[in-house]
Amino acid sequence: MKIFYSSDDTFETNFNELLERGKMDIEGVTGIVSGLLKEIQTEGNSALKSQIARFDRWEPKEDSELLVSTEDMAKAYDNIDPTLREALHLAYERIESYHQKLMPETWMDKEANGTILGQKVTAVDRAGLYIPGGKAAYPSSLLMNVIPAQVAGVEEIVVCTPAPDNELNELLLAACHLCKVTKVFRVGGASAIGAMAYGTETIPKVDVITGPGNIFVATAKKLVYGEVNIDMIAGPSEIGILADETAREDYLAIDLLSQAEHDEMASSILITTDSELANRVSDKVEAYLGTLSREEIARKSIEERGAIIVTKDMDEAIDLMNEIAPEHLEVVTRDPMSLLDSIKHAGAIFLGENTPEPIGDYIAGPNHTLPTGGTAKFYSPLSVENFLKKSSIIMMSKQGMDEIGEQCALIANTEGLTAHEESVRIRLRNN
Amino acid sequence: MKIFYSSDDTFETNFNELLERGKMDIEGVTGIVSGLLKEIQTEGNSALKSQIARFDRWEPKEDSELLVSTEDMAKAYDNIDPTLREALHLAYERIESYHQKLMPETWMDKEANGTILGQKVTAVDRAGLYIPGGKAAYPSSLLMNVIPAQVAGVEEIVVCTPAPDNELNELLLAACHLCKVTKVFRVGGASAIGAMAYGTETIPKVDVITGPGNIFVATAKKLVYGEVNIDMIAGPSEIGILADETAREDYLAIDLLSQAEHDEMASSILITTDSELANRVSDKVEAYLGTLSREEIARKSIEERGAIIVTKDMDEAIDLMNEIAPEHLEVVTRDPMSLLDSIKHAGAIFLGENTPEPIGDYIAGPNHTLPTGGTAKFYSPLSVENFLKKSSIIMMSKQGMDEIGEQCALIANTEGLTAHEESVRIRLRNN
Repeated sequence: MKIFYSSDDTFETNFNELLERGKMDIEGVTGIVSGLLKEIQTEGNSALKSQIARFDRWEPKEDSELLVSTEDMAKAYDNIDPTLREALHLAYERIESYHQKLMPETWMDKEANGTILGQKVTAVDRAGLYIPGGKAAYPSSLLMNVIPAQVAGVEEIVVCTPAPDNELNELLLAACHLCKVTKVFRVGGASAIGAMAYGTETIPKVDVITGPGNIFVATAKKLVYGEVNIDMIAGPSEIGILADETAREDYLAIDLLSQAEHDEMASSILITTDSELANRVSDKVEAYLGTLSREEIARKSIEERGAIIVTKDMDEAIDLMNEIAPEHLEVVTRDPMSLLDSIKHAGAIFLGENTPEPIGDYIAGPNHTLPTGGTAKFYSPLSVENFLKKSSIIMMSKQGMDEIGEQCALIANTEGLTAHEESVRIRLRNN
Repeated sequence: MKIFYSSDDTFETNFNELLERGKMDIEGVTGIVSGLLKEIQTEGNSALKSQIARFDRWEPKEDSELLVSTEDMAKAYDNIDPTLREALHLAYERIESYHQKLMPETWMDKEANGTILGQKVTAVDRAGLYIPGGKAAYPSSLLMNVIPAQVAGVEEIVVCTPAPDNELNELLLAACHLCKVTKVFRVGGASAIGAMAYGTETIPKVDVITGPGNIFVATAKKLVYGEVNIDMIAGPSEIGILADETAREDYLAIDLLSQAEHDEMASSILITTDSELANRVSDKVEAYLGTLSREEIARKSIEERGAIIVTKDMDEAIDLMNEIAPEHLEVVTRDPMSLLDSIKHAGAIFLGENTPEPIGDYIAGPNHTLPTGGTAKFYSPLSVENFLKKSSIIMMSKQGMDEIGEQCALIANTEGLTAHEESVRIRLRNN
């Protein structure tokens, strides 16, 4: 792996390149994606079916073929290995339990004068979850999107996933049954986003669309944003690791590779205070590469987008990592918890050598849908919050109006809004 | 005002038109807005200054002229009427106190096996607030955007507001001083959004942009979404009122007009079970119109976008209102609190005859930046949440890994990700 030293003259240039990782050319595909969306908006299912023929190489004859049968899901669930089934159930329970802790509650407070202020929390009516894939679909993506929607209390959950050559991944079907999802549609890419944003004769219009995807999906989500809400615009996956001299090179190397094997565009970045550790990790990465089933992808990712940075101290390491704002951040130092306060920007934080990032991908409990490309500076992990919205509550008492009405009327008057002013004054006159 | 009866054959058509209120032709202005943004992204201040010359009819000669002087703000504050100053301070305190109640907290829970899960809450580094206006700028908009950012703990707050003919509203300047805002820039419209999204030599790049604006601002916010986060895409203001036979026609009429006076495009919709009340409100609206300082705007809004709907019962009224999902919802019935549970979609809910909507615009405490055009189905009021983001926290104990590591490795293996699997197994072997 490339090793950079923060004391080098050329460091800033190299580091700025890392900050630009994950930039996607959304503009470059906006034309085609916008065309696909418009077709679906105006022609519904017929556009959807011809887009499926074009991209997934099979053409549904009837609208009903878009829907995956619940019998197929039940059968897939029955067919999977019992140990795996139990593992998926354990994952479901742990993810559910974590997300339950994130649920905000409706509250109301009464002031001494009887005025009530509060906030009401309500689930959205319909959520649309996009699960990428076809044969390579990940059941974990389904769990991570479905569970927060279910915990939030969403009544109607719609899933779209592409079925290239009309084939679906059996594990994904099994996971759908496990999650008690019934509305699963065989449609992918921008077409799926358009169908859920505008609705078709078969696919319901939803209020919120979440889930990962390629640049066409990301662009479609951006284009329909405002028509529906979306979780975030996500790019390639990435890991940052902060390590001191106490870290083990074999752990760090395999953790870096677990990110690199996702995608040639994935970034794996280690920042350490120990230059010897840097060298040992680099060697270990090379040694492991040959053992991986996805060696080619991982190698390209490590070579083109991997980096080890050696800093003068941990403060500098943390500062650089905050600038990177990685999707996943491992902290492998003598006392990782003591660094938590200074970590400002990261999608998920994995503390200590016993916490490899993949534990969070599947089973620890927190969501694996996380902000990438530095957007952890402003986006949060996927959560129940993405499937909820709030309404403010105000109930003024007569006394409450008497106490603050005059000041309200004055500000309204100053802003030149006399109907605003009068709507307050008419109450004051009658109190 | 137009009165519709839900029992009429033509009702559905008329109602569907109300559902389409507030649709904006974002696509129609995307070309021009995108051009302006690109200029700012590539040319910075020099583009900004020429855009100000083009739209606001003055050209800053020096970059430093973009920044409003803090002395001017202090002077404006000193010059306003003491009663108004006190009213604004009261508003600040009440808004601050309400938003403090919305602050989520970092939490961590330890499992019996020593594993720690949690969520860290952090403010974004920089927030950009857009305040529309020039001479008609509203100090209340400043308070409603600044206070949640300050309560959230944002370190650097940037404000942009247009200065047509290089003039600024004195009240807005006073409010800036009151809010202790120091970085206020004289730039408006899409130019301001571009400057805050990409940064220029003078205006810092921010992480989140919030605040209302016209279609150019809304479109610019949509285009930069992903580069930064935004609060929402907001359209014209609107009110929905649910009323039964206990409501007073004078209160309802002036409340409808307080929305209508904002904007010709504003919508004011009353849904009631009492057809006599409907007629009385309509008459009263007509009677009040002539008394308003903004009569012309209010009349056009009421005539073209106002409606009274008479339903057979309150359940139907509530169902229709949930479909409308209004920005502001007044509930003026015998026992308004008893209807709160059935209200699903509204930006802010005003309960009882003593709670005119304008009390929420200025002083009650909740935010007045609210989702419009039916987007209350998925957006929330502006809040501290818009200026915060979360990071998941995972710290596995050795025992915790022993308890769930095997299942994690199994799922990873099933998904074909062998580096993921090995990163877990290497820990299991060493435990």
